[in-house]
Amino acid sequence: MEPTRILIFDTTLRDGEQSPGASLNVHEKLEIAHQLAKLNVDIIEAGFPISSPAQFEAVRRIAEEVNCIIAALARANEKDIKAAADALLPAPRKRIHTFASTSDYHILGKFGHEKYGRSLEEKRKTILKMSIDAVTYAKTFTDDVEFSAEDAGRTDIGYLSEVIEAAIEAGATTVNIPDTTGYTLPFEFGNKIAELKKRVKNIDKAIISVHCHNDLGLAVANSLSAILNGARQVECTINGIGERAGNASLEEIVMILNVRKDLLNYYTNINTREIYNTSKMVSAFTGLLVQRNKAIVGENAFAHESGIHQDGVLKNRETYEIMTPESVGIPKNKIVLGRHSGRHGLKVRLQELGYTVNDEELQKVYDAFIELADKKKEVFDDDLRMLMGDEIQKREEIYELDYLHVNAGTNLVPNAVVRIKVGDKIIEESATGDGPVDAVFNSIERALSIKSELESYQVRSVTAGREAMGEVIVRIRSGGKSFTGRGISTDIIEASAKSYLNALNQKELYFKEEPLNKKEQISEVI
Amino acid sequence: MEPTRILIFDTTLRDGEQSPGASLNVHEKLEIAHQLAKLNVDIIEAGFPISSPAQFEAVRRIAEEVNCIIAALARANEKDIKAAADALLPAPRKRIHTFASTSDYHILGKFGHEKYGRSLEEKRKTILKMSIDAVTYAKTFTDDVEFSAEDAGRTDIGYLSEVIEAAIEAGATTVNIPDTTGYTLPFEFGNKIAELKKRVKNIDKAIISVHCHNDLGLAVANSLSAILNGARQVECTINGIGERAGNASLEEIVMILNVRKDLLNYYTNINTREIYNTSKMVSAFTGLLVQRNKAIVGENAFAHESGIHQDGVLKNRETYEIMTPESVGIPKNKIVLGRHSGRHGLKVRLQELGYTVNDEELQKVYDAFIELADKKKEVFDDDLRMLMGDEIQKREEIYELDYLHVNAGTNLVPNAVVRIKVGDKIIEESATGDGPVDAVFNSIERALSIKSELESYQVRSVTAGREAMGEVIVRIRSGGKSFTGRGISTDIIEASAKSYLNALNQKELYFKEEPLNKKEQISEVI
Repeated sequence: MEPTRILIFDTTLRDGEQSPGASLNVHEKLEIAHQLAKLNVDIIEAGFPISSPAQFEAVRRIAEEVNCIIAALARANEKDIKAAADALLPAPRKRIHTFASTSDYHILGKFGHEKYGRSLEEKRKTILKMSIDAVTYAKTFTDDVEFSAEDAGRTDIGYLSEVIEAAIEAGATTVNIPDTTGYTLPFEFGNKIAELKKRVKNIDKAIISVHCHNDLGLAVANSLSAILNGARQVECTINGIGERAGNASLEEIVMILNVRKDLLNYYTNINTREIYNTSKMVSAFTGLLVQRNKAIVGENAFAHESGIHQDGVLKNRETYEIMTPESVGIPKNKIVLGRHSGRHGLKVRLQELGYTVNDEELQKVYDAFIELADKKKEVFDDDLRMLMGDEIQKREEIYELDYLHVNAGTNLVPNAVVRIKVGDKIIEESATGDGPVDAVFNSIERALSIKSELESYQVRSVTAGREAMGEVIVRIRSGGKSFTGRGISTDIIEASAKSYLNALNQKELYFKEEPLNKKEQISEVI
Repeated sequence: MEPTRILIFDTTLRDGEQSPGASLNVHEKLEIAHQLAKLNVDIIEAGFPISSPAQFEAVRRIAEEVNCIIAALARANEKDIKAAADALLPAPRKRIHTFASTSDYHILGKFGHEKYGRSLEEKRKTILKMSIDAVTYAKTFTDDVEFSAEDAGRTDIGYLSEVIEAAIEAGATTVNIPDTTGYTLPFEFGNKIAELKKRVKNIDKAIISVHCHNDLGLAVANSLSAILNGARQVECTINGIGERAGNASLEEIVMILNVRKDLLNYYTNINTREIYNTSKMVSAFTGLLVQRNKAIVGENAFAHESGIHQDGVLKNRETYEIMTPESVGIPKNKIVLGRHSGRHGLKVRLQELGYTVNDEELQKVYDAFIELADKKKEVFDDDLRMLMGDEIQKREEIYELDYLHVNAGTNLVPNAVVRIKVGDKIIEESATGDGPVDAVFNSIERALSIKSELESYQVRSVTAGREAMGEVIVRIRSGGKSFTGRGISTDIIEASAKSYLNALNQKELYFKEEPLNKKEQISEVI
């Protein structure tokens, strides 16, 4: 029998970006969207346009530039759907993804007001009507409309069937069954899909999609169970990022179908050799580090510690390896650039790593590359990823580090001097601290007359060796929102200063575009 | 119907410790073992005694001190089993866990030599006999013998049934079915267990155990599927650490059975409120950071970013939460200590966090605590965890940092001065570098006349706020093995120096106990 195609709906830029502390700027989203297209996902969910001007702008730019089906999220109301349609306007292939809550928990929790009806029964009728109206309205903008029944995992099968049937009747071409709270078990979730196939009369007119959360560690297994029971689209994210414990990992779903072709008669159109690059890019831009033992993309996924075991691998790879590192794009040999690689060599490698660079950008990255190549004999892929991350951030810079000096040690009060450029202005300040990083942060705050709460501070040196560049990732909290900043340097203190200024830049940009007094801070999960 | 009990066999100290870069010293293993007993796991696999003197010693100490069934691993030969029995001697309740390869991949890959037989059929007979002999010999030391069929996930069901039946016949009280390469799918693995129950005549005389690896992200789902088909013991690790993509996560298995009692008629004896403390301790000691979106124990697992969503949680917790943070031991309110908390208050809190401290150790931690409390008004749990980690490391210190000074910044060659105590000797050195950390590492290497390869460098500040302590985790490679060092300080440069010295300490201790020229470097996975 011919294998059945499974569509991959990537929501890294929507649900994934809702991970606390993972906010991405427009340029970063664009780069990721281009890479997702290269990975060959079927649909890119680019954002939730009504939720903020920055979200709207990101969806619009992706719709303009990226060759893929672009989806945008909208609650089941006209304002949201209109915003999604407007943002998607430039896209040759667009999908409006609208949703309403269907579980009793969600109906009572979110539609408690009596304007939605007095009894649960009345509220259910209201939501059913909202869903039909939303799909009908969305259809006026595009034929490709997806409807999601939020918290379907905990929704009564009778009511769920009714809503899904009505949504298809109204024109939904994809119906999504989210396990919003990550509550269901594989056999239970699979049964739900099978039951829907039985009960919903017009189910063959739409594609069944699933969207699983990982609160009990079962998102991938639940998605697989759904596929076995008739689902034909899986919503997932790179590295499994997303609200709380995240979503189903794209790389795990895809490689399961790929490695176990012997048992599973399904395929995806994913170019698995782009998995590694995409994972690296998403981790670098979101600042969400991937744990070493993460399946497929973790640093240890293909590493073997034990002696005999290594011996076993050398003798016969299949003893412990069920797939090759190369199949997911981990290069067999480290590709190394150096001073003499030239502009063209750099450009080619950057493109291979998934980055889109125009001539002007190339020049800037090349300058940084040469500076680095002077310090390090060998420049690795991870170094280039960091340079690109830095370059993309600099596209919107308000504060710039001009000079820095620190003095620290035992029996010495750590102290720092900074000089910061703000437009044409230059500000100098100094301060002490509990350590040199604290002293630098204090100096910056004095210079800019601000104070913010430091939520976390992380450093990683991603490339091996002594001359490795360090990447500092800081998260600050201000105005009820978290902002992540990154900075790179072979000097960790300098990287710290840059990352802190970068987080402050992110904050300034956000509140410039979206004033604090905005009545409603909208952002939603499924 | 009464719920069925599922035994939790924790292998954090054996398979978990085999994660590249996660080596633990004896003191750390003891602390973790004590905490696992508090978590109330049923069996602690403490190590693989034949593989190294340090492993032997750790198993022996745990067998002496920790009140739980203590298991030790042994290949199917007399030397291994004797070493396991010797290490377990002091344990009131002990289990010898012996194993042999059963899949064709493993038989051909690891038993290729013709002394094991010329044909696959002959080799299979040899392994069958080895397995019987191993169980028989192990029974002379303890009645509690577990037998594992390595790579059972890819083993032909006929041969697997034969080996399992023979192992039970020889006296195995637990038979373990490992999916060593993380290859199977939930329905496939569940079927395998069901099929074994049908084919193996004496199966009721032993407990069926499973040991799943996470290469395709399905370790937890496979374990669950096995339980539904008759498995009564699950082998798992804290935070899911282990070879490659790791093992099934203990916390996920346990919370699935707990949260979904409505559908699953099983229970474990785990004290779920100790999950969080155990996760934190294992992460701190191994240096393996837990990713933010890790289910149950990740920083974001109970965090909600989006506006409406937060609103929903406040209104009605059940809208998005299927379990409470308190149920896994995440404290509702932050417990804060300060200068005036006193020695007793500190001791009580450390015990609550799972640490075992005698009076002498308490005095040392208390001194460090007072020093920290002078810098920070509020000392959090995570600060205490770092102080304890530091204290436990110091128990075996060869090199000690006495003095440090760095000078760094833009337009300045970073330079450092260090003074190191080695026994009675004091060594001073200075060096430049690409950054202050590099300069410090160079100074240390000059002072000690050594050179090592830096594999990774990470910093995290686990406690919130500006005066947070930083924890630096470095991994170096020397003599074909990785060593992880940690250091804490409010000064990141000082923490870096300490962590590097700590890694060098680990290396010295390792090669002191286990000379490089040791013929066989044994270490094995299941």
